[in-house]
Amino acid sequence: MDKFRVIEGGGEKRDVRQTMLAIGHAARRAARKLALAPRQRKNAALMVAAAHLRTSARDIVAANARDMEAAAKAGASKANLDRLMLNEARIESMAKGLEDIAALPDPVGKVLATFERPNGLKIERVATPLGVVGVIYESRPNVTADAGALCLKAGNAAILRGGSDSFHSSTMIHACLVEGLRDAGLPEDAIQLVPTRDRAAVGELLAGLAGNVDVIVPRGGKSLVARVQEDARVPVFAHLEGIVHVYIDGAADLEKAKRIVLNAKMRRTGVCGAAETLLVDRAAADTMLAPLTKMLLDAGCEVRGDAATRAVDPRVKEANEEDWRTEYLDAVIAAKVVNGVDEAIDHIETHGSHHTDCIVTERAATAERFLTEVDSAIVLHNASTQFADGGEFGFGGEIGISTGRMHARGPVGLEQLCSFNYRVRGDGQTRA
Amino acid sequence: MDKFRVIEGGGEKRDVRQTMLAIGHAARRAARKLALAPRQRKNAALMVAAAHLRTSARDIVAANARDMEAAAKAGASKANLDRLMLNEARIESMAKGLEDIAALPDPVGKVLATFERPNGLKIERVATPLGVVGVIYESRPNVTADAGALCLKAGNAAILRGGSDSFHSSTMIHACLVEGLRDAGLPEDAIQLVPTRDRAAVGELLAGLAGNVDVIVPRGGKSLVARVQEDARVPVFAHLEGIVHVYIDGAADLEKAKRIVLNAKMRRTGVCGAAETLLVDRAAADTMLAPLTKMLLDAGCEVRGDAATRAVDPRVKEANEEDWRTEYLDAVIAAKVVNGVDEAIDHIETHGSHHTDCIVTERAATAERFLTEVDSAIVLHNASTQFADGGEFGFGGEIGISTGRMHARGPVGLEQLCSFNYRVRGDGQTRA
Repeated sequence: MDKFRVIEGGGEKRDVRQTMLAIGHAARRAARKLALAPRQRKNAALMVAAAHLRTSARDIVAANARDMEAAAKAGASKANLDRLMLNEARIESMAKGLEDIAALPDPVGKVLATFERPNGLKIERVATPLGVVGVIYESRPNVTADAGALCLKAGNAAILRGGSDSFHSSTMIHACLVEGLRDAGLPEDAIQLVPTRDRAAVGELLAGLAGNVDVIVPRGGKSLVARVQEDARVPVFAHLEGIVHVYIDGAADLEKAKRIVLNAKMRRTGVCGAAETLLVDRAAADTMLAPLTKMLLDAGCEVRGDAATRAVDPRVKEANEEDWRTEYLDAVIAAKVVNGVDEAIDHIETHGSHHTDCIVTERAATAERFLTEVDSAIVLHNASTQFADGGEFGFGGEIGISTGRMHARGPVGLEQLCSFNYRVRGDGQTRA
Repeated sequence: MDKFRVIEGGGEKRDVRQTMLAIGHAARRAARKLALAPRQRKNAALMVAAAHLRTSARDIVAANARDMEAAAKAGASKANLDRLMLNEARIESMAKGLEDIAALPDPVGKVLATFERPNGLKIERVATPLGVVGVIYESRPNVTADAGALCLKAGNAAILRGGSDSFHSSTMIHACLVEGLRDAGLPEDAIQLVPTRDRAAVGELLAGLAGNVDVIVPRGGKSLVARVQEDARVPVFAHLEGIVHVYIDGAADLEKAKRIVLNAKMRRTGVCGAAETLLVDRAAADTMLAPLTKMLLDAGCEVRGDAATRAVDPRVKEANEEDWRTEYLDAVIAAKVVNGVDEAIDHIETHGSHHTDCIVTERAATAERFLTEVDSAIVLHNASTQFADGGEFGFGGEIGISTGRMHARGPVGLEQLCSFNYRVRGDGQTRA
């Protein structure tokens, strides 16, 4: 049943380094073809891959069962097992995801800017593919489909390195993607799955495969991202953590504040856009701190507060310095009273992670100061931080969220998976 | 007369590493302030710096004389001495350059995109500064002013590492920039000049100064760029070389072809946009190869050709494989007959450097194929490759030209010296 390819040469297994270098070269060759592939062909590949996912659902579930069994034996946590698990509904959702990506406008060839020079030269900046994208992920096997499809749509070759615990599941999903590529007449190497569980493969990928990887996207926990950020010799689209703040200004509307804080913290606690720290303006301490704190406690959220917050409810625990820089990813929030928007901005710039931060206020000037001065990838006024998501931004999907400042920042969608070049049209102009 | 600062601590000189780390920290602090500085203040700093350059012209020339003397003693080439030399006219040109940059629109805060979501959220993508830019350059002391000013205008802190041969000149120029910053009430550390000639400082800068450098821009020869690209642990805006092609299609207009080829090769031979290889369509070999070759030879250009090119004039030398991948930066060109646009594109993709390439043709469809399929930062139709320049693109200056695919590609102007973030305005929206 295993369809994964083991690269062999001269009758003997090559080592991981040679395997990975060969993958890199193949990806570069495929990327060159993919860059010029018409959108119909890319979309056809996605549609056929989606159909194959559906018809292979049983085989995928069977492969997944092998992964689940091994993971359970190895003592994986319930949360990990849930991330790993595939059933018919999740496979259908993956297939639907591919179709949704096929339906998006093609980002390649989009004219991003045009300008005409006094000498008559017409200059266009046009979106082109980035090249080769390396994706390193953990348990979730659906990343194989999602990431592979987004890269393909943007005309990039993808090198996917899934978690070793999802190896059989990812291999089956990858086989469906390859069926799509083949059927559409696109190079099969356009989406490659690293065919070994050897961890040395990750090191090779991070080293850039002799110039054949243009960017790496890690998808997983903090330790994975930290390792990638530390060791990669090529650009990385990632965020290490989302220490997300909601600041309730003195001029906030209490009902809006309650709605936003509850959603920002409790809608899903394990996502990077979940609030981790609540800052309340001293001017609102008397009127809003108590109802917001009680609301969170009543919703089952642990609150770790400064003295002022502890004073409003005995259930509030004492926050220490560490709490201001902790991404709980759980039903826990740190809470603190600050002296107005200045101290709020100061706190966020000192303790935050430049991911997503929010102000709740009815005073437009204060909101504008916050939006201008907080140096985060996403800053919001009167809206939940859980909107930090490419889908919610209308990007039709995302490969991740970046807190880097180069090329991509915030949700990384199709547009950010592209580069650009300049096309200059003249009529014989020469430079003086 | 030396105004350069030597960082000292506890009465004893710190080592280079500590000096550089302190520079990095100071740059980051300055960048934070600069990011929020109003444009009037940045422009005032540039105008005052320009005035100081003019009033300090004698002192700068005197400092430059010390550099020139040392360089001459060290046996610098005539070309190197010319790059190093400053006189009143060149200082005036630097001052004027600062004023021109002051007059440009402020790139920071520019709304790059806006979209409204069905739930009423209004999302803006807004340009923000990149952060801290490290610039490593060689002999030309004017880079101190140009690069420092472009970084400042884009709200970035700059760490400038000039060539050791231009140390006294750059130090004087830098002092004028600092006067401008001080006068405008901006942090003096916004533009720092590395205060040591120790080459270890470059290594520290390339290592990223503990996360306090966001991008490195090398300005100089191939060996400098190669070292920076090899060793930098942070993103680099650069091109290693410009192996620039002009392809003369069978459907070219001969007069346009002659004008463009002559300008592309001979206007200035030492710039990265200068043509290095001439490709002539076999369909044009009979009519255009001879006049183009003779024109170049008559203009004093050495031509190294394939058999077909050698056949048209005895002065043509024999080209070898190396010639197809050589950036001469001199009055030399490689010339070859190819089978139409397909072979031209193939040749360019195989031997080129993805910098700038041009097609001359009157057939629009052929031009479009070339513009789409040649994967270079700049592709031109019927215009000289020497237009590969930020000023000629209307960017009001450039800090360099990049052949990288991430963030900046082609001329790197103010816009490419910026990042962006997302500002989301709501009215209490929460995520379902």
